[in-house]
Amino acid sequence: MNWPSHGSNPQYLYEAMGLALPLQFIDFSANINPIGPPSALKEKWPGFFQKINVYPDPYATQLKERIAKSEQTPIDTILIGNGGAELITLLARMLAGKKVLIVEPTFSEYEQACRANKCEIVYHQLVEPNFELNPVDFHSSLMDADAVFLCNPNNPTGIYYPASTVISIIEECEKRDCLVVLDEAFFDFLIEYESVVPYINKFSNLIIIRSLTKMFAIPGIRLGYLIAQPAIVSSLSQLQSHWSTNTIALLAGELCLQNEFFIKESQAYISHERKRLFAFFTQEEFVVSSSNVNFYLLKDPHLKDQFALFEFLLHQGIIPRHTFNFPGLEGRWLRFAIKSNQENNQLMEVLVKWRHHH
Amino acid sequence: MNWPSHGSNPQYLYEAMGLALPLQFIDFSANINPIGPPSALKEKWPGFFQKINVYPDPYATQLKERIAKSEQTPIDTILIGNGGAELITLLARMLAGKKVLIVEPTFSEYEQACRANKCEIVYHQLVEPNFELNPVDFHSSLMDADAVFLCNPNNPTGIYYPASTVISIIEECEKRDCLVVLDEAFFDFLIEYESVVPYINKFSNLIIIRSLTKMFAIPGIRLGYLIAQPAIVSSLSQLQSHWSTNTIALLAGELCLQNEFFIKESQAYISHERKRLFAFFTQEEFVVSSSNVNFYLLKDPHLKDQFALFEFLLHQGIIPRHTFNFPGLEGRWLRFAIKSNQENNQLMEVLVKWRHHH
Repeated sequence: MNWPSHGSNPQYLYEAMGLALPLQFIDFSANINPIGPPSALKEKWPGFFQKINVYPDPYATQLKERIAKSEQTPIDTILIGNGGAELITLLARMLAGKKVLIVEPTFSEYEQACRANKCEIVYHQLVEPNFELNPVDFHSSLMDADAVFLCNPNNPTGIYYPASTVISIIEECEKRDCLVVLDEAFFDFLIEYESVVPYINKFSNLIIIRSLTKMFAIPGIRLGYLIAQPAIVSSLSQLQSHWSTNTIALLAGELCLQNEFFIKESQAYISHERKRLFAFFTQEEFVVSSSNVNFYLLKDPHLKDQFALFEFLLHQGIIPRHTFNFPGLEGRWLRFAIKSNQENNQLMEVLVKWRHHH
Repeated sequence: MNWPSHGSNPQYLYEAMGLALPLQFIDFSANINPIGPPSALKEKWPGFFQKINVYPDPYATQLKERIAKSEQTPIDTILIGNGGAELITLLARMLAGKKVLIVEPTFSEYEQACRANKCEIVYHQLVEPNFELNPVDFHSSLMDADAVFLCNPNNPTGIYYPASTVISIIEECEKRDCLVVLDEAFFDFLIEYESVVPYINKFSNLIIIRSLTKMFAIPGIRLGYLIAQPAIVSSLSQLQSHWSTNTIALLAGELCLQNEFFIKESQAYISHERKRLFAFFTQEEFVVSSSNVNFYLLKDPHLKDQFALFEFLLHQGIIPRHTFNFPGLEGRWLRFAIKSNQENNQLMEVLVKWRHHH
């Protein structure tokens, strides 16, 4: 067993595994909306060429105005970023040398960015198979941390922690003068999402990160935003490079956020596919995380770790995300995006093949 | 006299001046190639839409390979960035708290990024009207600086310092254990450029920044790169956010760098326009910096500062870059990009109008 170090970007993965990239493959490793990008974006795309020779608005005023309106928050509580990843990097920069608590298993960028900034890193470990987030247990992990990174709904489990749980954590952290970085990169996939944005007013320690690249399937052009009290937004913007969000991303963001129907349609499509897949997994004796969004963890409980399944899938041109480098998972699960109906069918066919032999 | 705080982005400038943005205006404030973007990019643009739902290659392997080939430097000496501005921010981050010497007047981002990272900032001031860079004078400014920022050809003067001058500075800095950040954002506008890239091997203190957004007129999509010894590239890449250079920029960069003819054509066009403009300026008694590239400083020597001329031009829909916030210029010059033949004609017509009254 020798997990490759990189999970996404199929060419690097196959290379690391010593395999040839098949002519036909389906990438289940990127958690991108299977029905995106929105058709309005496709229609407008050719016209965007006229804007590539213009510097981006460094204040992103029009996009901020749109977000301010839809999220009902003042414009000076918003920072636009070159993808959620840039916002995480800026936060880690701001937290350089501080003590940071990460709720694991989760998106690996928090730890990577904090390590690059010489933070002291401690963990609150969620335990499989339910990955429950219990505020009382959490508080005992908190100690004297200066900041917490919490992803909700969580990547890679897809599990959503209700607003009441999150607010209880924010309250406790506020008492201890500890920032809460709440990464809501996948919030818009949730039918049942309750917004915590109104709590920005009340809690000066709350920082919410959002991404537009997942719902609108635009990871190639990079776009995210952050909501926090103006003092935090202002310090972070000092650390940001000038013109960091490109013109095309700004235009795409303005267009996408007008498209309420696209979001509803995506939620319904994904929810339908998730139910269909999960029924199949139960029937075929695969275990999955109770995801509420567009990706989930899966394991074959007959295996100790999932390397054999991972390798089998790669040979069949199915690319999951391995979890070798997720603390608390260490390869005992694989993560899959919910893709199109036809692609999900192909996944199920390949898993039926696997079951014939295992 | 009340200079607005922001030099680019016409809408903010007119707003700060309390003026309405005219329906017709020409932006001479952005130093972008007047004949770009390349037509090959326009042709390929619609097809790029297919790539927006794919994460960028975080290693930018194909673009690095192309640069490695054209610059004759190993792939591990190259770092791709989200515009030159991101690379400056990363360098300032690496230099946090250190002593930094800036050769002024120059691009204001060096100081801004270094201040955000609590560097101690000292200056080597080039003196108008010739802005000579004398290595001996420079060495006496150097003292115990940890790093120097030098822009060549320099923004905002457009003056190019020959390789021999630059190398003498790098040598002296190396003796003193001082990094040299050499920003060559406009190198490809120079017909007479001598590359210092081969010196990367010899000097571990040399860091070269390049931009693709000026020559190829793509500031909206952000793309730059850095060349330095692998140890520096590796430390900087640790500090960089994941996927910071977007997929569209990577594709555009690969395409643009294949286009040697476009660069030659641009150099010839701009050189021709520069000669034509400079002859006019001499005749009409305007003073200009001895620029070798696509922008220049100009002043009306009959004025003490150039605010009256600046205001007059804005009223006429001609937007220069003021120099109020450039140390050593403080509004005594205006900067203009060299634009298309027709646009440069309009500038000359408006300056003739100005001369009728002043």
